[in-house]
Amino acid sequence: MKKASLLLLILFSVITTKAQDSLMLRKFFDEALVNGKCYENLRYLCKNIGPRLSGSAGAQTSVEWSKKLMDGYGFDKVYLQEVMVPHWVRGAKEHGFIIDGTTRIAVPIAALGMSVATPKEGITANVIEVQSLKELETLGEAAIKGKIVFFNRAFDPRFIETGAAYGGAGDQRFAGPAAAAKYGAVGAIVRSLTESLDDYPHTGTTGYDPQGGNIPAAAISTIAANKLSTMLKMRKLPLIKFYFKQNCQHLPAAKSYNVIGEITGTQNPNKFITVGGHLDSWDLAEGAHDDGTGVMQSVEVLRIFKSTGYRPKNSVRAVFFMNEENGHKGGTKYAELAAANKEEHIAAIETDEGGYTPRGFSFQGVSSSFLKDVNKNWKKLLEPYEADRLIAGGGGTDIGPLKETLPSIVLIGFRPDSQRYFDIHHTPNDVFENVNKRELELGAGSIASLIYLIDQHGF
Amino acid sequence: MKKASLLLLILFSVITTKAQDSLMLRKFFDEALVNGKCYENLRYLCKNIGPRLSGSAGAQTSVEWSKKLMDGYGFDKVYLQEVMVPHWVRGAKEHGFIIDGTTRIAVPIAALGMSVATPKEGITANVIEVQSLKELETLGEAAIKGKIVFFNRAFDPRFIETGAAYGGAGDQRFAGPAAAAKYGAVGAIVRSLTESLDDYPHTGTTGYDPQGGNIPAAAISTIAANKLSTMLKMRKLPLIKFYFKQNCQHLPAAKSYNVIGEITGTQNPNKFITVGGHLDSWDLAEGAHDDGTGVMQSVEVLRIFKSTGYRPKNSVRAVFFMNEENGHKGGTKYAELAAANKEEHIAAIETDEGGYTPRGFSFQGVSSSFLKDVNKNWKKLLEPYEADRLIAGGGGTDIGPLKETLPSIVLIGFRPDSQRYFDIHHTPNDVFENVNKRELELGAGSIASLIYLIDQHGF
Repeated sequence: MKKASLLLLILFSVITTKAQDSLMLRKFFDEALVNGKCYENLRYLCKNIGPRLSGSAGAQTSVEWSKKLMDGYGFDKVYLQEVMVPHWVRGAKEHGFIIDGTTRIAVPIAALGMSVATPKEGITANVIEVQSLKELETLGEAAIKGKIVFFNRAFDPRFIETGAAYGGAGDQRFAGPAAAAKYGAVGAIVRSLTESLDDYPHTGTTGYDPQGGNIPAAAISTIAANKLSTMLKMRKLPLIKFYFKQNCQHLPAAKSYNVIGEITGTQNPNKFITVGGHLDSWDLAEGAHDDGTGVMQSVEVLRIFKSTGYRPKNSVRAVFFMNEENGHKGGTKYAELAAANKEEHIAAIETDEGGYTPRGFSFQGVSSSFLKDVNKNWKKLLEPYEADRLIAGGGGTDIGPLKETLPSIVLIGFRPDSQRYFDIHHTPNDVFENVNKRELELGAGSIASLIYLIDQHGF
Repeated sequence: MKKASLLLLILFSVITTKAQDSLMLRKFFDEALVNGKCYENLRYLCKNIGPRLSGSAGAQTSVEWSKKLMDGYGFDKVYLQEVMVPHWVRGAKEHGFIIDGTTRIAVPIAALGMSVATPKEGITANVIEVQSLKELETLGEAAIKGKIVFFNRAFDPRFIETGAAYGGAGDQRFAGPAAAAKYGAVGAIVRSLTESLDDYPHTGTTGYDPQGGNIPAAAISTIAANKLSTMLKMRKLPLIKFYFKQNCQHLPAAKSYNVIGEITGTQNPNKFITVGGHLDSWDLAEGAHDDGTGVMQSVEVLRIFKSTGYRPKNSVRAVFFMNEENGHKGGTKYAELAAANKEEHIAAIETDEGGYTPRGFSFQGVSSSFLKDVNKNWKKLLEPYEADRLIAGGGGTDIGPLKETLPSIVLIGFRPDSQRYFDIHHTPNDVFENVNKRELELGAGSIASLIYLIDQHGF
């Protein structure tokens, strides 16, 4: 009899907990959708501050404004975390031409981030097209030396999530130019990392060795890449050449900051759940989806907790990381200091895949039984918000270093719908107008909900 | 021993069937994503034909072009199904003004579809704002007579799917003007059915009684609706008036067509699975998401089957319905003829919620055990494509009449992500440029996959 009563009591408490959780999630979403502030905050960041590459004046302004924004919300702690960041500048707009005998065809290019400049007069050279870094090996120095290597492997459209296609083609941009340099190439042109056929070059960082030996590298639009490839295939003599000129510079490292806001935990002030995105952005646009949406969702989570009166048991921090795009210095610094300060970190959630409709979350390096439990406990609660795809997968670049300094942490990536992200990624089109208010707000509601569940129930 | 062997055989056959299904779905998605034709077909429909309201020259051109398109694909049957449709025309662009004493403020309005014209000189009258049809009752004739009724209930942002918010506010447009007329109103202005705050009036059909007694009715942009509402609240004397003039006409019913393509079933030629959207569209734009994407996905399903060499057991039909927007005559005709011809219909799937990323399908009026089975059998197969939300819900306007003539049919609605649909719905922004190629193609792959599963396994 006693046993049966105990069982009933447990059952009753499980049911009421689920009902309470369900009510809280509804509260968070209502707050995000009815009184949401992230869309207007994003408008300010994009339209009044704009581009904010590490070391730039825009980055500094965004740090100061972000701190003020958090101060205004009255969180328990708001502070800056100093970090030295690379300071790369693009300089005057690049020029690129396909040279077909005496004809010069202008094509849209953009220097890859961290690339070196060309000589003042630009570079003109024959072009060799490759599909992979491996192909460089096969071709060898004889075929490559003195040429511009044109990396032209396209996105594989068969991947359902576009991030996988980005992963599949990305090594050309990250590592291609440095690899080509080893075989004596004088420059590198990389097909833009997008499936979209358009005339925008997509910038992004490429490997840079401060010891030297770097060659200038630029992204070329996908339409121009197709044109160049076709011309290379059709025209044998005179050989197709390529000309480009870019003016980028590496300036001395600059002082910058992560911006951090915190609601201190009522029960475990030294246990932390972090939610963050990155404040820096490429120089070509406004860094709206990459990653203005992520930082604005992160601070919105804390605002939602305050507005709905939810006091977390553990400390919850919104972190605006600096320098995700070309150095990861902010994420590295945050992880170092977390360990140095002997903080205990339960989980970190990164939102850096655009402010699109939420689909769910990915859990990094967890066991299948962990994932099964998470699904069993929380999937049903997130289902009404269509943010219930709880899968194995990456956490994110900025939170990655936490796993090294604090191995027991659980790293989680927010997963919005991925279809449109690489259409605008690292291009002049990454602007506020391409963000949908409701999609952004639903993301904030989803992240607040997951953090609440972790805070209440742990893993 | 025999029993165990039989069990093993069944188990083996279940496993190989699942594996085969899985391979086929992958094939359909690869075809949609690598060799997809729906995006370029949609471009033609939007850019070369454009608006195609029932009875218009555009509608007729779109019928002819659609038949040619299907003929070109070499389906087993391609034919037109004659249907008489209403022929309403907007006429010269409307004008609307808020009149505040001697000041006239121009505001964006658009006549609701099927509305009558104002007198040539327009209508000027005092305005009474209401939030619901019920409020008309409360106010009564004394308060309403001689006035313009302004229906201003906004979308409820708390709904996660925007279709629910549309449903919650939609009666104002469908039934509001006719209800106001009964109380002696001289005109009706309806807040645009969208959550988006913008300056576009969203048209759409309103109730029209051919016996007479109709009053002119127009949609007003949400920004202008907020302005009018604020002015009504703040300014008591002189009373705020509203002026509008519109020039629409009801012409005699016109002859038009549903366009139908069919792959005849190898085993059951007289059993049908229908997939369709509507070919007609509002006159203000290109009918891209509403519903160019739906018809182009429908024909793409048949093309995918042919290209991948899949021969369905049952006959599969793509139907481009005519007149969804202002009469539903095409859907009604299709259902009548299906019954008259003694066809057996297994299922009909409608795609008319935009060409956005697929989320899943809704099954109309099915039991919870039916839904449980569908999920048990098919959810896992659709999960890799993130189109696995199989829920109870509506089928669609065009397939609805089939349930009346053929009660055993299962009606299914394709459910893409809903967040952006009502931003552009029935406005000048419903254009090709707002459709994403991959999202559209993933939808076609999802629908082809579901039809394959129904064709192979039934319910």
